[in-house]
Amino acid sequence: MKIQNKATLELSQEEMKSYGYEVVDAIVAHFVTQNDKLPVVSGSRSEMEKLFLEEAPENPTNAKEVLNFVLNEVMTKSNIVSHPKSYSFVPGPSNYISAMADSLTAGFNIFSGGWQASPAAAEMEIVTMNWLLKMFGFPQKKGGGIFTSGGSMANLTGIVTARTVKCGDDFSKAVIYLSDQAHSSNIKAIRVLGFKKEQIRIIPTDSEFKFSLNKLKNAIAKDRLEGWQPFLLIATAGTTNTGTVDPLSDISKICKKEDIWFHIDGAYGGFAILSDDGKPLLKGIEKADSLTIDPHKWFYQPYEIGCLLVKRHKWLKGTFTERPEYLRDIEGNTSEINFYDHGIELTRRFRALKFYMSVKTFGLSEFRKAISYNIKLAEATESYLRKSPNWEVVSPATLAVVNFRYNPIGNKLSEKKLDELNQYISQEVVSSKEALLVTTILNKQVVLRMCLINPRTTMDDIMETMNLCEKFASKKLPI
Amino acid sequence: MKIQNKATLELSQEEMKSYGYEVVDAIVAHFVTQNDKLPVVSGSRSEMEKLFLEEAPENPTNAKEVLNFVLNEVMTKSNIVSHPKSYSFVPGPSNYISAMADSLTAGFNIFSGGWQASPAAAEMEIVTMNWLLKMFGFPQKKGGGIFTSGGSMANLTGIVTARTVKCGDDFSKAVIYLSDQAHSSNIKAIRVLGFKKEQIRIIPTDSEFKFSLNKLKNAIAKDRLEGWQPFLLIATAGTTNTGTVDPLSDISKICKKEDIWFHIDGAYGGFAILSDDGKPLLKGIEKADSLTIDPHKWFYQPYEIGCLLVKRHKWLKGTFTERPEYLRDIEGNTSEINFYDHGIELTRRFRALKFYMSVKTFGLSEFRKAISYNIKLAEATESYLRKSPNWEVVSPATLAVVNFRYNPIGNKLSEKKLDELNQYISQEVVSSKEALLVTTILNKQVVLRMCLINPRTTMDDIMETMNLCEKFASKKLPI
Ligand SMILES: Cc1ncc(COP(=O)(O)O)c(C=O)c1O
Ligand SMILES: Cc1ncc(COP(=O)(O)O)c(C=O)c1O
Repeated sequence: MKIQNKATLELSQEEMKSYGYEVVDAIVAHFVTQNDKLPVVSGSRSEMEKLFLEEAPENPTNAKEVLNFVLNEVMTKSNIVSHPKSYSFVPGPSNYISAMADSLTAGFNIFSGGWQASPAAAEMEIVTMNWLLKMFGFPQKKGGGIFTSGGSMANLTGIVTARTVKCGDDFSKAVIYLSDQAHSSNIKAIRVLGFKKEQIRIIPTDSEFKFSLNKLKNAIAKDRLEGWQPFLLIATAGTTNTGTVDPLSDISKICKKEDIWFHIDGAYGGFAILSDDGKPLLKGIEKADSLTIDPHKWFYQPYEIGCLLVKRHKWLKGTFTERPEYLRDIEGNTSEINFYDHGIELTRRFRALKFYMSVKTFGLSEFRKAISYNIKLAEATESYLRKSPNWEVVSPATLAVVNFRYNPIGNKLSEKKLDELNQYISQEVVSSKEALLVTTILNKQVVLRMCLINPRTTMDDIMETMNLCEKFASKKLPI
Repeated sequence: MKIQNKATLELSQEEMKSYGYEVVDAIVAHFVTQNDKLPVVSGSRSEMEKLFLEEAPENPTNAKEVLNFVLNEVMTKSNIVSHPKSYSFVPGPSNYISAMADSLTAGFNIFSGGWQASPAAAEMEIVTMNWLLKMFGFPQKKGGGIFTSGGSMANLTGIVTARTVKCGDDFSKAVIYLSDQAHSSNIKAIRVLGFKKEQIRIIPTDSEFKFSLNKLKNAIAKDRLEGWQPFLLIATAGTTNTGTVDPLSDISKICKKEDIWFHIDGAYGGFAILSDDGKPLLKGIEKADSLTIDPHKWFYQPYEIGCLLVKRHKWLKGTFTERPEYLRDIEGNTSEINFYDHGIELTRRFRALKFYMSVKTFGLSEFRKAISYNIKLAEATESYLRKSPNWEVVSPATLAVVNFRYNPIGNKLSEKKLDELNQYISQEVVSSKEALLVTTILNKQVVLRMCLINPRTTMDDIMETMNLCEKFASKKLPI
């Protein structure tokens, strides 16, 4: 039987080269010009439908034509998260080396699930995981971890590991503690994992937006009395709202005493440990049983790469191993890690590659400097705001986040009017497309929030943005 | 306050260009030469440690030096899942356009979580989801879906949606039905989501490896009698082992009558619907409440892209919406979908782009042809095997999968010896690195399995592999 196939979805070598070079040119142009562009776009559903809505085409279109359409119409209609004036929510400054590493990952289509499919990819994940374990003071031999798609999946992976190790199958009486500043991905994960609302304790934070230890202790005591099983506490190392780090050492003592799993969500702030300015704030992070960090945030990686570290790698294996028949031939030596046994995903991209290549190329010290700069930049911004008669600092610069509001000295505006005014400022700034500066709520007040983890953001950028804000504010005043 | 930063993790325009072109050259070379390479690598943990183990470097290394090391040492130590003789487990044939689309995704670092961050990315996901809804006969207006990292996450997302819609918070009496041929990612997801072992019913398959309907009906009846709540059935459209499609229409009737959520795992076989040869087998797939498909398998996309389709998009939103304060400014028009509200991940890559660009460039008809070819190739392989006195077909070519074993006519080998022999053949083939051909277990027999979804695999490739197998078999015989 002879069968022929011409539909191999292939291009000629020349076509591939010239297409690839155009892609590189576009990416390089993006890197070179991004600072000069407007970071914000807007587009309604109906505008987008007009541009993009169509039936799936049966017939081919010239490859370059499709590419040009994408470059002109698609890539231009996204916020530039790596723009120096992209202050929200968590910027994505990225770096070119890692972007190219991601291209290699896609181009070579390496399956990073099991050892035998790619010993190099598995080993690279082990090597970079070792770097991270050391960085965060986790045990190197017994500790372990896995790269995930992001912080949300790392938190989910950590919480299900905690549940499995601490509760086994029956978690009907298990309760979880987190603060009102914990990231929503934790609540989402908790609900996805099958916990009921009544198993979640949201502990109020103190005036500094930190876990209130007394309220925490009281809650645990009350739960024990009522027959609940306190089993997991989620602290935050760098809250998304204010950059605040919970009192990790004190919490770790409570967890130890109460036999509670200690998960730290360091998705936003964790990498500040690389800087002398950030490290002291993160004292106690090494006490966690599991720790989420998120290289696609403050480690300047392109999406997606999150990470979960655990004190004992066997916890992951114990939680995630399922063995189907057709994978039986690839049971390797036990030292040869199959990462699909350490997390939820079977097929996995080679996420470790970009982490590895960027650290090797730039050196860790470059990352340290960039992170230190970010922290100092936020402090300088705070100083600037404090010197101005128009601005009030609502939460001080912490791990590169600062919250503030327009509140000129001597004004007689009600809280409601101040909220309106600051909301208005944000709206106008965003509408101008000059900066992505949005609000959050702190102490029931509407405040403006800057997250300054882009190493290319300068004090000039910030001052320009503040001037813009003042311009809009004065347009609205008196209200 | 003046602060300076030199650590911006930047390269010059010239450096970026020449680095990028080298990356493209390497990827193109990989595409051009992959057919001529050996698909299998091997490497022990200690070999890999020798190559890659090091401390995180503080200092930089020349970018090109790192790149060359990666190209020479890392990328070469992975199985080539897109190789024509890569028959296991599920090959990843990929395509160049989508690989380049992934480069753009990484290079532009587009945040595809919320509408406002990228209206174009959100709309592209809506548009491609519409294509998929139509392709699978799902309602276009009311239906919905989301791209995930892969099939594992799509199954998990589907199951938690089913649980939320059908059971709400209390699923303590809920039971789930799947066949003994269901993919392990389903069991893994079920356990992760908090179901106990006793809530899982593994229904034996019939002689054709299909869900046994009578056993299913009996199990449901028994569970009702015992006070359980049958709420979810997971059927498979293309089992990983044999390509078998469960009797979808019949199962859907049972689900309807019993008010059970009908999830279909079409991660492996779903896209066969594009081919006239596959479509009849998938009749009933449109009856699913939720359906997993996996473009990084038989839709020739590079990792990672999986997909979940649902009959009602509101189910996803109802299951996954959590609203933190700092996202309050981006509540858009309700027609503007925030995909982080439709799944677990907040930060998401722009996965829709590669799907879109490859379909636009090649046209759907090219995909149809490739898939038809794959199905025919497996059938031709089956014919070839049936004609040979040495081979026994254990499960017939179905959706491009065929299982067989070496079992020469007239031999007096025990089942145990036959198992050993076929295991040996696979081991030798893999050791030769000429082909990735591994075994699975069917009817308690060790069999060789070929999954033929690479459009570049030819009948010659297959015959060469069979000859190789015969060579090894005759070396071992008589045993
Ligand atoms: C503290 C914290 N945890 C978790 C997440 C979720 O991470 P991802 O968006 O990578 O899923 C975020 C994202 O902003 C975060 O700030
Ligand atoms: C039927 C089926 N379901 C689910 C999966 C899991 O998909 P992924 O590897 O993309 O997570 C597979 C993978 O082989 C599969 O064959």
